[in-house]
Amino acid sequence: MERIAVLTSGGDSPGMNAAIRAVVRKGRHHGLDVVGVQRGYTGLIQGDYLSMNLGSVGDIIHRGGTILRSARCEEFRTPEGREKAVLNLQQHEIGGLVVIGGDGSFRGAQHLTALGFPTIGVPGTIDNDIPGTDFTIGFDTAVNTAIQNIDRIRDTASSHERTYIVEVMGRNAGDIALWAGLADGAESILIPEAPYELDDIVERLARGDRRDKKHSIIIVAEGVGSAIEIGQMIKEKTGEENRVTVLGHIQRGGSPTAFDRVLASRMGAEAVDLLLAGERDKMVAIRNNEITSLPFDTAFAMQHQPDMSIYDLASILAI
Amino acid sequence: MERIAVLTSGGDSPGMNAAIRAVVRKGRHHGLDVVGVQRGYTGLIQGDYLSMNLGSVGDIIHRGGTILRSARCEEFRTPEGREKAVLNLQQHEIGGLVVIGGDGSFRGAQHLTALGFPTIGVPGTIDNDIPGTDFTIGFDTAVNTAIQNIDRIRDTASSHERTYIVEVMGRNAGDIALWAGLADGAESILIPEAPYELDDIVERLARGDRRDKKHSIIIVAEGVGSAIEIGQMIKEKTGEENRVTVLGHIQRGGSPTAFDRVLASRMGAEAVDLLLAGERDKMVAIRNNEITSLPFDTAFAMQHQPDMSIYDLASILAI
Amino acid sequence: MERIAVLTSGGDSPGMNAAIRAVVRKGRHHGLDVVGVQRGYTGLIQGDYLSMNLGSVGDIIHRGGTILRSARCEEFRTPEGREKAVLNLQQHEIGGLVVIGGDGSFRGAQHLTALGFPTIGVPGTIDNDIPGTDFTIGFDTAVNTAIQNIDRIRDTASSHERTYIVEVMGRNAGDIALWAGLADGAESILIPEAPYELDDIVERLARGDRRDKKHSIIIVAEGVGSAIEIGQMIKEKTGEENRVTVLGHIQRGGSPTAFDRVLASRMGAEAVDLLLAGERDKMVAIRNNEITSLPFDTAFAMQHQPDMSIYDLASILAI
Amino acid sequence: MERIAVLTSGGDSPGMNAAIRAVVRKGRHHGLDVVGVQRGYTGLIQGDYLSMNLGSVGDIIHRGGTILRSARCEEFRTPEGREKAVLNLQQHEIGGLVVIGGDGSFRGAQHLTALGFPTIGVPGTIDNDIPGTDFTIGFDTAVNTAIQNIDRIRDTASSHERTYIVEVMGRNAGDIALWAGLADGAESILIPEAPYELDDIVERLARGDRRDKKHSIIIVAEGVGSAIEIGQMIKEKTGEENRVTVLGHIQRGGSPTAFDRVLASRMGAEAVDLLLAGERDKMVAIRNNEITSLPFDTAFAMQHQPDMSIYDLASILAI
Repeated sequence: MERIAVLTSGGDSPGMNAAIRAVVRKGRHHGLDVVGVQRGYTGLIQGDYLSMNLGSVGDIIHRGGTILRSARCEEFRTPEGREKAVLNLQQHEIGGLVVIGGDGSFRGAQHLTALGFPTIGVPGTIDNDIPGTDFTIGFDTAVNTAIQNIDRIRDTASSHERTYIVEVMGRNAGDIALWAGLADGAESILIPEAPYELDDIVERLARGDRRDKKHSIIIVAEGVGSAIEIGQMIKEKTGEENRVTVLGHIQRGGSPTAFDRVLASRMGAEAVDLLLAGERDKMVAIRNNEITSLPFDTAFAMQHQPDMSIYDLASILAI
Repeated sequence: MERIAVLTSGGDSPGMNAAIRAVVRKGRHHGLDVVGVQRGYTGLIQGDYLSMNLGSVGDIIHRGGTILRSARCEEFRTPEGREKAVLNLQQHEIGGLVVIGGDGSFRGAQHLTALGFPTIGVPGTIDNDIPGTDFTIGFDTAVNTAIQNIDRIRDTASSHERTYIVEVMGRNAGDIALWAGLADGAESILIPEAPYELDDIVERLARGDRRDKKHSIIIVAEGVGSAIEIGQMIKEKTGEENRVTVLGHIQRGGSPTAFDRVLASRMGAEAVDLLLAGERDKMVAIRNNEITSLPFDTAFAMQHQPDMSIYDLASILAI
Repeated sequence: MERIAVLTSGGDSPGMNAAIRAVVRKGRHHGLDVVGVQRGYTGLIQGDYLSMNLGSVGDIIHRGGTILRSARCEEFRTPEGREKAVLNLQQHEIGGLVVIGGDGSFRGAQHLTALGFPTIGVPGTIDNDIPGTDFTIGFDTAVNTAIQNIDRIRDTASSHERTYIVEVMGRNAGDIALWAGLADGAESILIPEAPYELDDIVERLARGDRRDKKHSIIIVAEGVGSAIEIGQMIKEKTGEENRVTVLGHIQRGGSPTAFDRVLASRMGAEAVDLLLAGERDKMVAIRNNEITSLPFDTAFAMQHQPDMSIYDLASILAI
Repeated sequence: MERIAVLTSGGDSPGMNAAIRAVVRKGRHHGLDVVGVQRGYTGLIQGDYLSMNLGSVGDIIHRGGTILRSARCEEFRTPEGREKAVLNLQQHEIGGLVVIGGDGSFRGAQHLTALGFPTIGVPGTIDNDIPGTDFTIGFDTAVNTAIQNIDRIRDTASSHERTYIVEVMGRNAGDIALWAGLADGAESILIPEAPYELDDIVERLARGDRRDKKHSIIIVAEGVGSAIEIGQMIKEKTGEENRVTVLGHIQRGGSPTAFDRVLASRMGAEAVDLLLAGERDKMVAIRNNEITSLPFDTAFAMQHQPDMSIYDLASILAI
């Protein structure tokens, strides 16, 4: 293999640039040419390639977003689109592709492998919802962005002795809610993976009142439903006002944390090693603090589960 | 005068604690007893007083919110409530009151003065919408919180080459929107003080597209209307998707910036000096970098205007 | 067991407060009385105890430092001091003690156990240098504080095209240097665990020059020697100026990251469970993402080793 | 005038990029060609020019450092060097130059004007030590960087009940020390503009001890002398240990605050207007919140004075 390519796909996440840098630099270390594909699968089809050298990835390790950009690509959903993509790769004499993104992006990578083109996935998404890896690139940063802002809300909640309901990201996975909830001492944490009882939440608020707690914070993962509606329901039950804040897209950007920079660097480098070792159709993962890999199919056969011991612990500690 | 009181009222703002600290320490420096009133006018009526010494305000200069807390008080809207408040103050031999808050809080203070009780106002609100002062305590922090989070959104906007619409606080005043908009290079800034044309916004977006701009950010002050609806209208006009984020209450809390800590310290100290000089019915202000004061009525006769040169400059620089 | 105590000892680290909170809240959850000992072993000898309830640890999960404070204690190095400490604990009918701190603090805990008093250690130190646990409380925050500030230095280094030498904490362990070095793309990382060749550093600088790199950053763990002297030596070899910054004690404080808050919450809770299960003379640990524990002696028989794969990877990626 | 140039010179400061952006965009707005000169006066002599368009300054408003870079230039100190610089400018048909930097850089600009070439200065330095303007670009960011890190030190100081001595930047001017000192409640602030008495500092520490203060922070501007030596002297007088941290170059970088971005945008735009109006040999300034300008010579005839009312207030409030 003499030339490899790298792309980012799906929602951006902090650390993607560090992963791109690692792919390029590790690739160059092994004497490979490295090509950056712009806008994910769109650039793959259009042949929108950038030749990357050591300097192309200088001064990006600490930047959020992705210098290769990302985009949805309808054409890649068609067999014609995928064949065009592979043809392009072959014409450029590219021998392997690193796909940095979420599980949707990995399914795209599998289509390429089905057409005979070697791909390796690097898990990059703030949601931490990819099975087979303990952490995804961007999750740690997203949780820290969440708690820094919830800390701010806490000041106001405390000054006004109010209840705040904060919606964090996580359509299918409660990981951000769980970590942010434990880290910020939230009274209640609502996640898609666990049913919730409104009466329970209300009872926990009442208990806080009784022990003269100055404020309460309830964290809601977006997959559970609208925090605004939940706030309304709680108001009806308690008869007391509350305030709702939806953190939204601020959780997706920002300079990556040390954890995410290190994780991304390791994973990007591992992806290159896997390609060089002739591996394909696999994703890089971190399990028990070790960088490893597993077949996409093995990962997809598993189901992501957040650490529910955090849920239980948060419930005990926020009494 | 041997004893003074201090309270915070209205929405909390970063730097209120630094102002409380300054009132207490400057008061003690002049040999005064200082009493902290809890929960604004509610505590004034209920006699919820804390005796404050030097240590009471230790380790708070850098904290958001207000240690004296704040609350709405319906009872203070009645003549009976106000008389009770003054009676309480007199029974505790308090000779003057410092009210830290917004213009609503200052009108409350005027009612006390009308009943013969000396009050001085210190402008504390993130909105910067108090006439007579160039800056209010908390505004600088709120703008910085806004831009730190808009910087994060910029990463995602740039990675996905999308338009983002960001709603910032400011029900009546566009100051936060203006400063954040200029500071973050927003393509368009929508504020209550200036009419806006949807076609204008759309034309600016188109112009950015033509010069291959990677992303656009539109800042909307909450007083202009719902950012979600504005986003919808823009989408209909442009035929392109956009994303909306409402920054919300995160702009109210957080550790105050240096500017706000210094401003609050100066204003709090000045309030004590004014009371000692026999002044009343006045608010502290900063004008042309100098701490000064003016009668509440003079301030209320003026109208707050944001610096519209910022509006014009932002429009030119974000081309 | 009906009453337990908790203390913090040694250098403070971010997350200690979250650990204290977890000990108190988990203890109360199990119906235990919890006593906070002030100033580490000093308070143990002097009987400087605080009764802790749920509210005592409210609003501290996000604060750096330790509300129980810490101090050196010469008297505890004597048998008399230790006996006095145990006597005090017994007189207060305390059945177990949680010691949050580093390995020096754990050796103190062992002395108590030798006198028959059950202790459990919770690893809290920014240095990550305690054998037997993958991470210590405070390490993640310290690394993030380091990289946020090195990011700032990078701006200046890049603007002036200069080499910067940054000294980070770590007297015996290179963990902070390694993580910060990989996370910030440092050209060279000097740690106590690996010998370094000045010529190597100089050659790496020259290589960067040749490929027109705008700046270089060299990270030095304090245990390696004075960054100022190393900077001087590099200057003599290269004939070019460089700048040195010693990050110093800013790495010890600050609001803990999500990782540290979660780790501290889990570890503090686990310590209570261990005491209730009749365990003693053990430390809590995290290994392979699981909270676990091991005897102090087992830990002390091991040697802490930083992850040298990070060292190698950083060297490859910073070419 | 159809073409102007812009350069940054001297130590970099946060906001320089926002000023460059404003010069380029405002220039383009008026139909001017804008040229960016690399590495300050070095690039002026070497003709190291970049043609700047709207996109050249995209996505830089929030970045620290300067994309045009900066360097010392010995050759510019010679008449030959300066003549070469002017010749270069004239050959490129450049009609005016904006110099962003400190007073040393402005003196360089004056040499060009003496040779008949119009220059306008924009004050960019973290030190705030340029006479004639209330604030310089970068000062607000530097103070905020200082206090964020001193807040961290405060955690440790408080946990260990220690005295910390923190050295901040400011070789000739005490502005950073004054603002950071008031904003962080420092017990003593040592600046070049005011003599200090060691006994005074010690007495203030003793007074803090007497009222059971948990920690003390002493801020030293670098121009006063080595914080390490001052720490040593204090230790000898008090007999108690203290810790010293030198914040160093971290104060020079980092993403600029809103204040600095707005100030830089205004000043950069004003510089273009001045050149277009035929002005020369002047610097842009902000006085009493208004953007204005004054001749270099007028500024140099003045002496920068920090606001000593801050000094007095800090002393009263930190009792």
